[in-house]
Amino acid sequence: MNTPQRGFASDNNAGVHPLVLNALKSVNDGHEIAYGDDQVTQRVIRKMKKIFGDESEIFFVFIGTAANVLGLSSVTQSYNAIITTDTAHIHVDECGAPEKFTGCKLLTTPTPDGKLTVELIRQHMHGFGFEHHAQPAVISITQATELGTVYTVDEIRTIAGYAHENGLLLHMDGARISNAAVALGTGFYEMTGGAGVDVLSFGGTKNGLMYGEAVVFFNRELCRNFKYRRKQGMQLASKMRYIAAQFEAFLENDLWKENAAHANRMARKLHEAVRNLPSVEITRPVEANAVFAKIPAAIIPRLQEKFFFYVWDESTSEVRWMCSFDTQEKDIEEFRELLISLG
Amino acid sequence: MNTPQRGFASDNNAGVHPLVLNALKSVNDGHEIAYGDDQVTQRVIRKMKKIFGDESEIFFVFIGTAANVLGLSSVTQSYNAIITTDTAHIHVDECGAPEKFTGCKLLTTPTPDGKLTVELIRQHMHGFGFEHHAQPAVISITQATELGTVYTVDEIRTIAGYAHENGLLLHMDGARISNAAVALGTGFYEMTGGAGVDVLSFGGTKNGLMYGEAVVFFNRELCRNFKYRRKQGMQLASKMRYIAAQFEAFLENDLWKENAAHANRMARKLHEAVRNLPSVEITRPVEANAVFAKIPAAIIPRLQEKFFFYVWDESTSEVRWMCSFDTQEKDIEEFRELLISLG
Amino acid sequence: MNTPQRGFASDNNAGVHPLVLNALKSVNDGHEIAYGDDQVTQRVIRKMKKIFGDESEIFFVFIGTAANVLGLSSVTQSYNAIITTDTAHIHVDECGAPEKFTGCKLLTTPTPDGKLTVELIRQHMHGFGFEHHAQPAVISITQATELGTVYTVDEIRTIAGYAHENGLLLHMDGARISNAAVALGTGFYEMTGGAGVDVLSFGGTKNGLMYGEAVVFFNRELCRNFKYRRKQGMQLASKMRYIAAQFEAFLENDLWKENAAHANRMARKLHEAVRNLPSVEITRPVEANAVFAKIPAAIIPRLQEKFFFYVWDESTSEVRWMCSFDTQEKDIEEFRELLISLG
Amino acid sequence: MNTPQRGFASDNNAGVHPLVLNALKSVNDGHEIAYGDDQVTQRVIRKMKKIFGDESEIFFVFIGTAANVLGLSSVTQSYNAIITTDTAHIHVDECGAPEKFTGCKLLTTPTPDGKLTVELIRQHMHGFGFEHHAQPAVISITQATELGTVYTVDEIRTIAGYAHENGLLLHMDGARISNAAVALGTGFYEMTGGAGVDVLSFGGTKNGLMYGEAVVFFNRELCRNFKYRRKQGMQLASKMRYIAAQFEAFLENDLWKENAAHANRMARKLHEAVRNLPSVEITRPVEANAVFAKIPAAIIPRLQEKFFFYVWDESTSEVRWMCSFDTQEKDIEEFRELLISLG
Repeated sequence: MNTPQRGFASDNNAGVHPLVLNALKSVNDGHEIAYGDDQVTQRVIRKMKKIFGDESEIFFVFIGTAANVLGLSSVTQSYNAIITTDTAHIHVDECGAPEKFTGCKLLTTPTPDGKLTVELIRQHMHGFGFEHHAQPAVISITQATELGTVYTVDEIRTIAGYAHENGLLLHMDGARISNAAVALGTGFYEMTGGAGVDVLSFGGTKNGLMYGEAVVFFNRELCRNFKYRRKQGMQLASKMRYIAAQFEAFLENDLWKENAAHANRMARKLHEAVRNLPSVEITRPVEANAVFAKIPAAIIPRLQEKFFFYVWDESTSEVRWMCSFDTQEKDIEEFRELLISLG
Repeated sequence: MNTPQRGFASDNNAGVHPLVLNALKSVNDGHEIAYGDDQVTQRVIRKMKKIFGDESEIFFVFIGTAANVLGLSSVTQSYNAIITTDTAHIHVDECGAPEKFTGCKLLTTPTPDGKLTVELIRQHMHGFGFEHHAQPAVISITQATELGTVYTVDEIRTIAGYAHENGLLLHMDGARISNAAVALGTGFYEMTGGAGVDVLSFGGTKNGLMYGEAVVFFNRELCRNFKYRRKQGMQLASKMRYIAAQFEAFLENDLWKENAAHANRMARKLHEAVRNLPSVEITRPVEANAVFAKIPAAIIPRLQEKFFFYVWDESTSEVRWMCSFDTQEKDIEEFRELLISLG
Repeated sequence: MNTPQRGFASDNNAGVHPLVLNALKSVNDGHEIAYGDDQVTQRVIRKMKKIFGDESEIFFVFIGTAANVLGLSSVTQSYNAIITTDTAHIHVDECGAPEKFTGCKLLTTPTPDGKLTVELIRQHMHGFGFEHHAQPAVISITQATELGTVYTVDEIRTIAGYAHENGLLLHMDGARISNAAVALGTGFYEMTGGAGVDVLSFGGTKNGLMYGEAVVFFNRELCRNFKYRRKQGMQLASKMRYIAAQFEAFLENDLWKENAAHANRMARKLHEAVRNLPSVEITRPVEANAVFAKIPAAIIPRLQEKFFFYVWDESTSEVRWMCSFDTQEKDIEEFRELLISLG
Repeated sequence: MNTPQRGFASDNNAGVHPLVLNALKSVNDGHEIAYGDDQVTQRVIRKMKKIFGDESEIFFVFIGTAANVLGLSSVTQSYNAIITTDTAHIHVDECGAPEKFTGCKLLTTPTPDGKLTVELIRQHMHGFGFEHHAQPAVISITQATELGTVYTVDEIRTIAGYAHENGLLLHMDGARISNAAVALGTGFYEMTGGAGVDVLSFGGTKNGLMYGEAVVFFNRELCRNFKYRRKQGMQLASKMRYIAAQFEAFLENDLWKENAAHANRMARKLHEAVRNLPSVEITRPVEANAVFAKIPAAIIPRLQEKFFFYVWDESTSEVRWMCSFDTQEKDIEEFRELLISLG
């Protein structure tokens, strides 16, 4: 396939930010103890603890699926259930990794906008103490959501409060947490640990890193044996300094914010550029870096030839256009023109 | 801890070869489809198939533990057993990942030199058809072994023949396969698929890569659904081009051979340099890039201050010194001098 | 708690039919080889194969949950998904055993009547070949359903046809299969293997046995290694003759039919007896041995004091009344009178 | 196959003691709440707590493999290791169920007599805190052992002390605990909880029950969520009263002791009867109800025709003869005569 230079397929189709590449090179001298006991990793974790709080514990893993699964496994037993949306990445995009690795059942609910609410959660809050029923132990939300929407800090706080009142924990899949933080104008802590989140998958790959995510626990009791789970979960990097270095670059001078702000801005521009076209019906609020739209099925393949993207729902011909840190205005202009010409 | 510049701890304490770093940069332009459908990955896999044969199938994963576990899971059911040595990485260094992920039992045997033989394997070859007994399905060998020894091609062929005659498959953990190939003076294929190996963990990280290993199947039937196992096994890299690019550099102009030959040569030099010292008793044949020795327990900590390495067996004060692609002759000289001064 | 003599809680609250008890005694002489190689087990399996066909293979296990889980595990890999209803026993009443043991994801759908249809199944039939998505491999239906309804033979045949056309298999949870067979006026084969079912959990405990269920495969290829799964699944009875003997009694002189016909008749009588009472609103068709009704929440505890039963849905005060092989007409009369007096 | 009336194959080839059969009948009246909340189960558990202590918690399961696996799963995480002998039932006779269900690694050691010692255990007591290594958490011993030997109370206490000093727990597989208690002349508690055992698989099936074993925890903290594990582990009997009733008969008037004393006595008589025959070389101390011997390979099949038994080790032609509660003196006499005639 002749892939176009840049498309709207996903923020992980983008490359690596130059400053991140430089960081890899900068830590390449000499030997470092493997498996995370090196000076680079220790230094970066100290920096990240300044963001997430003294009580936090931070572990690097390779990918977001692993961050989700290992974070969840650390706070569940196999007879537990995890409550989430029916569009959650852990439900639809991880090929059953949560079930396989944790043994838990996922209890899902449809949502209008990819966001859980206490009301939606409540329908699964029964059967406690009844051994025939997988016992709900964790609520999992995604920020920004898989539908491009963003929980407000208050919404997160409300869910966290409900979770804790009922003896459950709150997990956040933050694969696109930077985009959410920029959308809300907050820092990372305010909408995670500060809002009651207990376990966070802190994403980097979708915002300019090469590989590497972090699992952040906001209470040490939750991760006392996490190092064994990470190793058994096949996520312990030997040359960990290269993950740490990427996060160092990511956090330095707010590179994360610059990248995410750009991606979000491009999404808004894309939204502006296409929303009034006759062939386009915008289907979701554009709050982060994704634009969802229904377009005529017939034009999808021809559009994809030049700008690759994914069809979200075949049955309704709804498509998803993701912007990333390297999306350019001319990409949007060309895309708009092509849409019009195919119109 | 004030880590010394270069030690003999492990070949994964070394950094990344400059040509590998360059390769990362060289594939960084523009968007590529994620998850391995990109042009770089496809190109590199085609190149690797030229090495491993038309019948081979090749999949990138992040680390060696995952290569082992996912390769094994692809050719077993949970009621199977895997026969290996009691020093095998899959048994002593993967925190139970094989058991957790495959459900299989590991049947282990002591060996004098880290190498399985038909005679050693045979003790576990019973109970077939008896449902109380986990059914042996795979023999797993490590090349080069965890004790620094190397199977000859004939030895591998003999084990493979025995495995196949008895309806089992042969798996090879090739975390240090380059060092073994150099030691034997062969290419990769001769001692893997060509000698009857069915599934190979093809290692790169211990020989100059940043991250990334490959699972190589020598028969397509064995991996028809491997892509699902890799995803569910949390080993599907989104930005896979960066793993592929490293392997491209690794194979180009025989960089792998240059690196491994250097490491092996340094091990021989280290062996030469220390074997006649009064404080040193060499305990294993030096066939690849490791030197094992007994030294006085009292000097270990002081030696480690300048040159970090691991104690292999506390009870006998046996230590392991690994050489890597960046070990320098002066490291060996300084180490020898320090040994003498502590002697 | 002072349990009432007989209630409407569940058909497994009933005791054991006297003929089944006698059968246990009748096989108690002398030694028999353990683990199913005994003469009683072999004899009963031969008899059951006459019912389920020459191609069938039959394995005894202890309980229905195990029959479901092990049957499903035999025809899935961990990256598969199982499509079922959101009221299915495997989803709501097995504490996550299917996920834990098979690694699979359950994809569920609400239904009006506990029955899957092709239309309902179809919403989960996507993502094939896409490794991010757990791959649908099995459709699981319950006969009679958890809501007391019964699939017609045609309905089963339609689902089986759809499954097979799409490369999936059809599993049937037959915990109450006798009640369904009686309701349809068919034998066991017509609505299982004869209608396209591939794997069946053939239930006995809810219809007069002490313990013991059978997994029936209608194609030998599906269970070639099942004996290992049963053992590893902790379901291999050492003294298996006592399970076999129960099934022999169950099938002899159509005891199963007599028991189930009685239970179904009692359900119809109960339905007749209460449906016109002002406090009772029947909520589901009465097709097998269950009656579902909404009654005033206030009278539930007082009713339960004399006749134990379960509340199906707290939020709507819907309750379930199950009849069993030993339900007596006077139980129904007394229950009706009590309902009226509490009314 | 024409199975002989009674052989020496296994104590689970025997039938059910008549008093146990009677007990099944005695609890068969009327309805009882399913899944263990019935009056019979509650009554029998109260009785058993008088034996095992106020702090104990007791759960019925179907079989010994499940008792072992679920007991172990309750006190481990998947990254743990379990130290046991290489002849342990959990290692050689459960088809990998412990690995599959708990995710743990089994660390085994050869023994002269089937019994662990602190010295044998110690070889696996390393790698603590090192995440590459499955972390030892439980020591598992079998009483009486698979080789027919019996731990003294002091030996158990010594192992328990060592376990607890090192932060591990002690599990006992008591499939033949009655035979051990009789051999030692103690009650159940003295050699279990009283000697430091933390989790016990309390066996009944090999000593006259039809089915049913119990998991006994001597500290409530160890089993707080066991009911969910039992259900998810597919071991929750719906009609549990019939397991409870068997244990009631088992404990009443010391039926367990009478049965086990008889079996042990028969083993001693068998030992006496054959030990001086020229064709027989006794290979293990006869301490419980098993006799191990080497006999000429040629006579094994002809001996098995009349008295079925298992070959323990093909390579040495060592066989195992088990006595059970229903072994008769004339069985021994006839067996001796046959041995002489084949001799």
